[in-house]
Amino acid sequence: MSIEINDIPALARGCAILGTGGGGDVRTGSLAAIRAIRAYGEVPLVRLADLPDDALVVPLSGIGAPTVSHEMIHGEDEPKRIVEEVERLFGRRPSAIMSCEIGGANGVAPVAWAARLGLPLLDADGMGRAFPEVQMVSMYVAGLPAELVIMSDIVGNVVTIRPVDGLWSERLARAVCVAAGSHALMADYVLTAARARGAVIEGTVTRALEVGRATEGAADPLRALQDRLGAARLITGKLTDVERRTTGGFVRGTATIEGTGAERGRRLTLELQNENLVALENGEVRAMVPDLITVVDTETAAAVQTEGLRYGQRVSVLAWPCDALWRTPKGLETAGPRAFGYDLDYVPVEELTAHG
Amino acid sequence: MSIEINDIPALARGCAILGTGGGGDVRTGSLAAIRAIRAYGEVPLVRLADLPDDALVVPLSGIGAPTVSHEMIHGEDEPKRIVEEVERLFGRRPSAIMSCEIGGANGVAPVAWAARLGLPLLDADGMGRAFPEVQMVSMYVAGLPAELVIMSDIVGNVVTIRPVDGLWSERLARAVCVAAGSHALMADYVLTAARARGAVIEGTVTRALEVGRATEGAADPLRALQDRLGAARLITGKLTDVERRTTGGFVRGTATIEGTGAERGRRLTLELQNENLVALENGEVRAMVPDLITVVDTETAAAVQTEGLRYGQRVSVLAWPCDALWRTPKGLETAGPRAFGYDLDYVPVEELTAHG
Repeated sequence: MSIEINDIPALARGCAILGTGGGGDVRTGSLAAIRAIRAYGEVPLVRLADLPDDALVVPLSGIGAPTVSHEMIHGEDEPKRIVEEVERLFGRRPSAIMSCEIGGANGVAPVAWAARLGLPLLDADGMGRAFPEVQMVSMYVAGLPAELVIMSDIVGNVVTIRPVDGLWSERLARAVCVAAGSHALMADYVLTAARARGAVIEGTVTRALEVGRATEGAADPLRALQDRLGAARLITGKLTDVERRTTGGFVRGTATIEGTGAERGRRLTLELQNENLVALENGEVRAMVPDLITVVDTETAAAVQTEGLRYGQRVSVLAWPCDALWRTPKGLETAGPRAFGYDLDYVPVEELTAHG
Repeated sequence: MSIEINDIPALARGCAILGTGGGGDVRTGSLAAIRAIRAYGEVPLVRLADLPDDALVVPLSGIGAPTVSHEMIHGEDEPKRIVEEVERLFGRRPSAIMSCEIGGANGVAPVAWAARLGLPLLDADGMGRAFPEVQMVSMYVAGLPAELVIMSDIVGNVVTIRPVDGLWSERLARAVCVAAGSHALMADYVLTAARARGAVIEGTVTRALEVGRATEGAADPLRALQDRLGAARLITGKLTDVERRTTGGFVRGTATIEGTGAERGRRLTLELQNENLVALENGEVRAMVPDLITVVDTETAAAVQTEGLRYGQRVSVLAWPCDALWRTPKGLETAGPRAFGYDLDYVPVEELTAHG
């Protein structure tokens, strides 16, 4: 199949839901995708099984603070400069690009990058959601050495990092990103199809499209979305407090939702670091990273991203299980609660919400 | 000729004098050079004229805060990793390495790197002195595009930067350096001998050796050094005040010297940013960057580096002309007083000290 202009709104809605509040503004990515498809044509969506072992896949994503990406959008040449660097280093042209992060803008914008490059998009990503740090990708969890990061910024600089490990790839890429104005495009790993097998999360572009379409024409969009995701509803209420700051290339803060209607008197607090990381009620954890927690508009079931949180919004909070990869010991070490500084033992959202 | 163990003390003394207070601790570089020559043999010193046009020259230097390099010395593998990256990018082995910066440790340590790599050292550098920023090199002033920076840190990370210009090479390299602990090894440009001609400052390794030997056995070391350098003596006195801070990968501050003996009542202030940049007396500039200003011990004429400045030291301050390249409009734009934030029109030290 191919991704057409008509698919972009659903893809954007789905990616925003999977973004758990982060991953950048899907609107910017959508406009870029529509514009690029109009100019360069539809983007073929390929499956990993369709690629020969030695085919090169370039996982791309934006890196930086979402609040900055609102005002400073990607240039049009960053993907080209990164692919040129790949060709220089590997001596051959990539066969496909891949989203590093299906959640948020990084799930939608790759359609624009693929169209512009004349390359197919792989139906897969490295997270199945959004995460704030460079090493928080399936390739790292699967044990592939973090051996190559290629970055390009809007100015035209290209930086190639050969890190000793995933944590250094994050530290160095973040420093470069902040120096470039807190926003850059990045290839995190360059994979042969053979190495990608088992090290990427497959089918996630299709999944984002399905999630985005779940609410189309539904009588109860929230219910329809919840069913499609297999999500628990943590609260329905009103946003009463938002505290956010942009620091070191990240957005950090908290958001508080107070129950309304039948839920009056309840109060849920979300801890944010670009994404929604932990949901707390009366000091009890209701859901935690790496499981997905998304704030949606109660009426339309559209995702409300971290940077769109506003006092008085009528919202519901949904939580649902992450990909099984994140629940392995290496997955939890990489992106479990302790990786974000929370002294919490991970408990799956299904168990925490079984009586909710 | 070759550089032997016996040459290192004179080379170190000369490099410290040319370092104008900065460029890192020559003692660390000396120990590394002596140890490497002992293990790998003498280092051939080659002239640019001896190299064929297509020979590759790799200009190397440490980047970072001198106060940090005291405690965190280079590892032994950084030069090797950088040369491996050069070989990967250019498909051939370099013919020589070059010091980016003859002043300070970066003038001495390349002997160790060359010995370890089994490569000759080019009798040239990119400054003829020390400067604190990446783009402040003769290659940039000569108009060579700042197209490649390769960095390696003690951890083993390798970062390759293709900057859009020299200022971005500084900004990105500095960010990587700070992320890596405020200290890294860097190849700034990779030059063919053909491109290096006219774009490097030749003969500066030999010059540093001569400057270092000028005081050997001299009855009046200060006089002998002053004659060899063609330097003016700005003051002889006592260090009465030193203010220093390490910030953003730099050491910044001021040092005040009060005249003693016949010079009692005079007071000279030095403005520092890794190097000594401006010398002021009664609000009048006595010497300014890019001319060289070095504090020396009055008795031995040994250089006192910025990080070695101590209350009560008996010192003299010497100032002498920089290489003609730095006095061109592009040279002054790159490393003149305004490049460091001083609202001063450059006046050559010979004119400022004509009546001194």
